[in-house]
Amino acid sequence: MAQTNPSVRIARAPQGLPTREDFALVDEPIPVPAEGEVLFRAVYMSLDPSMRRKLPGPQGAPGPLGGTQRVGDLMIAGVPPPSLGYMSGLVGQVVESRHPDFTQGDLVQGGCWWQHYQVVQGHSLEKLPAETKLSEALGLLGQHGFVAWVGMRNIGNAKPGETVLVSAAGGAIGMIAGQLAKADGARVIGIASGDKVAYVVDELGFDACIDRTNEDVGEALDRLCPDGIDVYFDNVGGQVMLAAYDRMADFGRIVICGMASEYNAVELPFGASLRPVLRKRLRIEGFVVYDHYADQFAEFQAEMKALIAEGRMKYRIEVIDGFENAPEALARLLDGRNKGKMIVQLAPDPTG
Amino acid sequence: MAQTNPSVRIARAPQGLPTREDFALVDEPIPVPAEGEVLFRAVYMSLDPSMRRKLPGPQGAPGPLGGTQRVGDLMIAGVPPPSLGYMSGLVGQVVESRHPDFTQGDLVQGGCWWQHYQVVQGHSLEKLPAETKLSEALGLLGQHGFVAWVGMRNIGNAKPGETVLVSAAGGAIGMIAGQLAKADGARVIGIASGDKVAYVVDELGFDACIDRTNEDVGEALDRLCPDGIDVYFDNVGGQVMLAAYDRMADFGRIVICGMASEYNAVELPFGASLRPVLRKRLRIEGFVVYDHYADQFAEFQAEMKALIAEGRMKYRIEVIDGFENAPEALARLLDGRNKGKMIVQLAPDPTG
Repeated sequence: MAQTNPSVRIARAPQGLPTREDFALVDEPIPVPAEGEVLFRAVYMSLDPSMRRKLPGPQGAPGPLGGTQRVGDLMIAGVPPPSLGYMSGLVGQVVESRHPDFTQGDLVQGGCWWQHYQVVQGHSLEKLPAETKLSEALGLLGQHGFVAWVGMRNIGNAKPGETVLVSAAGGAIGMIAGQLAKADGARVIGIASGDKVAYVVDELGFDACIDRTNEDVGEALDRLCPDGIDVYFDNVGGQVMLAAYDRMADFGRIVICGMASEYNAVELPFGASLRPVLRKRLRIEGFVVYDHYADQFAEFQAEMKALIAEGRMKYRIEVIDGFENAPEALARLLDGRNKGKMIVQLAPDPTG
Repeated sequence: MAQTNPSVRIARAPQGLPTREDFALVDEPIPVPAEGEVLFRAVYMSLDPSMRRKLPGPQGAPGPLGGTQRVGDLMIAGVPPPSLGYMSGLVGQVVESRHPDFTQGDLVQGGCWWQHYQVVQGHSLEKLPAETKLSEALGLLGQHGFVAWVGMRNIGNAKPGETVLVSAAGGAIGMIAGQLAKADGARVIGIASGDKVAYVVDELGFDACIDRTNEDVGEALDRLCPDGIDVYFDNVGGQVMLAAYDRMADFGRIVICGMASEYNAVELPFGASLRPVLRKRLRIEGFVVYDHYADQFAEFQAEMKALIAEGRMKYRIEVIDGFENAPEALARLLDGRNKGKMIVQLAPDPTG
């Protein structure tokens, strides 16, 4: 019997948080690479809040958040072709190569579907250095780390003694953003929920962390940031963003990195006046990490590896076992009940 | 009989647009400078939309816009002490000096009241170069020019071929902001009203100008900016800001310079979602010009003088004759019925 290729297709449009029934675990043929293509097997897949945005809306129409997927489609991980490897949410190993740059066994990042085996154009595949630890490649040293770094370096630009606020502080990006600000000498306050609150302070070394489920965020900010917030690294949008906005210090920077609280909803109007942007000389800026790979990825990795070597950069990963458990994990992630960066394991890790 | 000192005090809190009856033209004694002080006589006073913000609210309470003035106070021009000369809205000549840096006849910028004669601390007075044309010192080569320059240079940063939109394009700041963008090689669209629409295109050389009183601004922007707006230099806020925001191109910059449309009202919530800031990698940034004098004013003046010499920087001034006509002029200015930068003439111009 031929080896099978476990895959996930969209069974129906989710109502609110996705459930197991919104996805169908199916078996598909293992694809065969043509000239210039590579077949690879995924070891880990990143689970990300932004996956919710890509799911279809009611009646199978594209989702309210710009999602382009429809019922019946393979579920997406990362960005579809012709994207390049660094936009992929999967890492694994080359099984068969018909491209001169790749050999069986190479560690790679690429592909864009919830599938064990995928064929991609060789030029769009990212070869990972031989010393790569695959479980880090999707997080600390990969896209999530780079997102945090680009946001803090290009926009946040925290100076020693400044107060930096990070929402979703126990999440894949927030963990890193806060530690980068600490490395810059800033005072760092997190916002998180559940057991992540203690983790962020005790293990990651944030100066304080607000429990958004048990505390009034605005009151806690008044207490913890009496001189205002110099940098707000926003991963959530919504009411938490508004509470931070009201408390920005003069010359404050708001890094618009994600809007997890709004991924389940239509776009909400920003319920505040922009006049403080003028009065306080604020800067509100968004970014998309893919714009910066060519220019800054090498610089990011060098800095990150140095911080890891010095013991100044910690990271928590929650490994989910197989596609069977991925939908429930995605719902927990969207609900803030993850324990650190979530990755789905699809095959034994040769670098673990 | 002693020489008199015509002055304007606030007679009552304005309802909406200010009227002549909201102000009292009074005579006051000419103050006598103490050691370290200078008495000067104003030649011109700048009229600015932001003056509305400083007026008191109903029942004489501070205004809804943060105004700190009360009924009975001298009306303010510029920023009150201990501000420095460049924050003043008045230019004139030294009448009597008890400060070693100043001599009778010096051209200066300083003071902060609607008064002909004012005493100021010498260290807070700004001496203007002997070749200064006083009518330019408050506009093109002074604060308004500098505001436009700082906003375009530090935030807008227009590149050749980009599309730049300027609201209040026929106003004191908009005229300059648009011409600076033209000098940078950008395509520049204005929004204005009345006879300023034709002036902006025919005299200032903007590529087009939308008449906000006779056109649907959104439809006109769709037509004139089919590839989106790269830089929006916002002088007005409100609905015009929202129309521009909806049409920003990726990597667009919104320069928050003023909110004239809101100076008569309480702060309005920004009626759009911030999600496009993320999706389009937008930057929304405010600034206050006083932060930049020390670092950049000399650079600004050098660039501006070169542009004037090359005939690439034009400017229209509407001179108002005396305090008697200033309240009505302020109302016209707030209503967009000015013809260029408004200044009030209080004495013969020795540099005219």
